[in-house]
Amino acid sequence: MGRVYNFSAGPAVLPEEVLREAQAGMLDYNGTGMSVMEMSHRSAAFADIIETAERDIRDLMQIPDNYHVLFLQGGATQQFAAIPMNLMRNGKADYIVSGSWSKKAFKEAKLYGDARCVASSEDENFSYVPDVDAIEFSPDADYVYICQNETIYGTKYPKLPDTGSIPLVSDVSSMFLSEPIDVADYGVIYGGVQKNVGPAGVVIAIVRDDLVREDVNPLTPTIMRYTTQAEAKSLSNTPPCWGIYVCGLVFKWLKGLGGLDAMKKINEDKAAILYDFLDQSKLFEGTADASCRSLMNVPFVTGDADLDALFVSEAKDHGIQSIKGHRSVGGMRASIYNAMPKAGVQALVDFMAQFERDHS
Amino acid sequence: MGRVYNFSAGPAVLPEEVLREAQAGMLDYNGTGMSVMEMSHRSAAFADIIETAERDIRDLMQIPDNYHVLFLQGGATQQFAAIPMNLMRNGKADYIVSGSWSKKAFKEAKLYGDARCVASSEDENFSYVPDVDAIEFSPDADYVYICQNETIYGTKYPKLPDTGSIPLVSDVSSMFLSEPIDVADYGVIYGGVQKNVGPAGVVIAIVRDDLVREDVNPLTPTIMRYTTQAEAKSLSNTPPCWGIYVCGLVFKWLKGLGGLDAMKKINEDKAAILYDFLDQSKLFEGTADASCRSLMNVPFVTGDADLDALFVSEAKDHGIQSIKGHRSVGGMRASIYNAMPKAGVQALVDFMAQFERDHS
Repeated sequence: MGRVYNFSAGPAVLPEEVLREAQAGMLDYNGTGMSVMEMSHRSAAFADIIETAERDIRDLMQIPDNYHVLFLQGGATQQFAAIPMNLMRNGKADYIVSGSWSKKAFKEAKLYGDARCVASSEDENFSYVPDVDAIEFSPDADYVYICQNETIYGTKYPKLPDTGSIPLVSDVSSMFLSEPIDVADYGVIYGGVQKNVGPAGVVIAIVRDDLVREDVNPLTPTIMRYTTQAEAKSLSNTPPCWGIYVCGLVFKWLKGLGGLDAMKKINEDKAAILYDFLDQSKLFEGTADASCRSLMNVPFVTGDADLDALFVSEAKDHGIQSIKGHRSVGGMRASIYNAMPKAGVQALVDFMAQFERDHS
Repeated sequence: MGRVYNFSAGPAVLPEEVLREAQAGMLDYNGTGMSVMEMSHRSAAFADIIETAERDIRDLMQIPDNYHVLFLQGGATQQFAAIPMNLMRNGKADYIVSGSWSKKAFKEAKLYGDARCVASSEDENFSYVPDVDAIEFSPDADYVYICQNETIYGTKYPKLPDTGSIPLVSDVSSMFLSEPIDVADYGVIYGGVQKNVGPAGVVIAIVRDDLVREDVNPLTPTIMRYTTQAEAKSLSNTPPCWGIYVCGLVFKWLKGLGGLDAMKKINEDKAAILYDFLDQSKLFEGTADASCRSLMNVPFVTGDADLDALFVSEAKDHGIQSIKGHRSVGGMRASIYNAMPKAGVQALVDFMAQFERDHS
C-alpha cells in the first residue's frame, strides 16, 4: 500500500520530504557515522541540531529576544501543571473554557490555587468561542489561560482577549506554526508538537523572560521549572533528541515554503475547499460556529450516526484514514494540518460529494 | 563515512538491525500507509505496537503480574520527583548515594519530605558502592532508593540491600536489560531508555501494584501519578510513540539473541576483554573498585590529562567515538551497552595497546 491521506488529529501527518530526510540519515546522520537517536545530547552534532532548530523557529515566528524557547517533554498535559506551578504567585488565574483541553487545564490548575472559569462555551457543546470582550478578568490574576484552537470541536479564537497587563497563556498545540501570530501578545505560548510540528514527545514552550522566575511553587519538580530549562537551554537532562531533530526538519520545510505567511495562505486555501463544500452540502454539516472555524480541525456530521459510520468505513477504501470524529462531537473530523496536501483535502471533498449523491 | 564505534554514555548506540527496520518503515509502517510518527496513539496499529512492547518486556524480564509496566516521559530526572511524590506517605525515605545520579535523586527527594542519606561513597569520588550490609535502614522509611549502575563512575551494586518489608526503588537506566534481575526484589524499577533500550524521551517504570496508590502528595501533577498512567495503560495523554516503537524493536532484537541470559553472557565477554586489558596495562588504569565494576560503563585514565586528551583525539581516527570521560572522573569512559558489538570493544583494546606501545 502507498501513502494514505491521514486526517488524524494527532499524532498526525508529517511532510513526506521530512520523512525521507529522516530516513536517509537513519544510520549515518550527516557523516557522523551514527543515527541522531544514538548521539550524545552533549555532542557538537546535537548542539548544532538544537541550536539550528531554535534559530529557525525564532525566525519563523519572529520571536522577540526577551522570550525563551524551551524544548520540553510531557506534552501539553504536563504544562497544565507546570503553568500554575511556575506562574501562580497570587495563587489566582483566570481560565476561558472553550473545549476539552482548556477544561482539563482548568481542572489541573485548581490543584495549585484559585483557578477561576471566567467564560465557558460548554452550554453549546463547545461549538463556539466565548465573546472575549464580555469577560471581566480578575485584576490580581497571575495569568489568563486559553486554548487557542480546540482540536476536538474545531474552533479557533477569532480574536485574542485583551488582558491588559495580565500575561496571556495560550495552548496552541493544534494550530502551532499554521499561521503567523504576534508573540508579543502572549506571556507563554506552548504546544505539543505532535499535531503540526513533529513526532509526539516534544512540547515547545515560548516563555517571556519575566515569567521565568525562581519563586515558583516550592513543590515544583526541578525538571518542570522554567528556570531550570531556560538556564540549561533545554539540556538540563537528556532531551527528546530525535523529536527535536524532526521538528527542526519541519522548520526547514516551512522556511522552504516561504514561512508562516505562505503557510497560512495554503491553509486558508485548503480549509476553504472543505468549508465551501460543507456550506452548500445538503447531507453534511460543520459543527463549529462559522464565526470561529479552525483552519486545522474540521468536524462535520450527517446527523445520522449509522451514515457517519458508513462514511468513515467507506472513506478508507479511498485512502482517507483517521477521519472518525471524537466521541464528544460524533461524526467525522478532518484534521488538515500544515502537512496535509491540498490533494488530500480535494480527495476528501470528492468522496464526500460522491457519498452525498449515493445517499440522497 | 561508515558507521563508527560509538561509546557514548547515552544517548547511545542502537542495534544496526533495529535502525534498518525503523528506516524501512519510515514512510509506510507495516502497510498502514503512514510512519509510526504520524499515527494516532488511539489507532489499532499503535495499540498493537505498545501492547506487543509491554508483552515482550514482561517476557524478557519475567515481570510478575502484580507489577505495572509504564511508558513515561521526562527521563529519570522526572522520576526523581515522581517517586517521592507518589511513594512518600510517612514522609521518609532512605537514599544510598553512590554517584551523581543517586545524589541528584536524593537532593530532589528533599523537596518532598525527610529524605535521609544512609550511606555514601562520595569520600572516594564514588569509585565504590557502599557496603549494603552495614546500613541500618529507617524502619518507617517509605522506600529505600538506589541507582544500581552509576554511569559516570562505572560502578554496579555487587548485591542488593536487604530492605526487609521496605520497598526498594532502583534506577537501572544504564544497565536496563543488560542482564536478568529478579523483579520481585523491588518495589519500583525504572530507567531512561536512552542508554540501553531506545531513543531519549521514554522512561520505563515497573511499579508493584501496592505502590500505585491514590494517596499521593496532593500537588503531584496528574500526568506524574502512577495511578493515572497505570489506569490508562500509559495512554492518558499522547505517549512518545516513536520511542516506544523503537524500544519494541529492541525487545524483539533481544529475544532474537536469546533473551537476558544470553545478553548477560555477551556483555560479560565484552567487558572481560576491556577489564583484562586494563588489569595488565602499565599505562591505563580503571577507576572503579574491582569489587563493583559495571558491565556497561568502564571509566579509565592514564594519570596524565594531556595524554588522555591525545588518546581521545587519536581514537577518532580509528572510528572510536564519544570515549571522553565525564569531567567528574576525567580520562576516558567506554560505555559498552548491549548494542556495542564485540568487534567495537576489540577495536578499542587494539587501539589502547597500540597507544600504550607508542607512549611507553
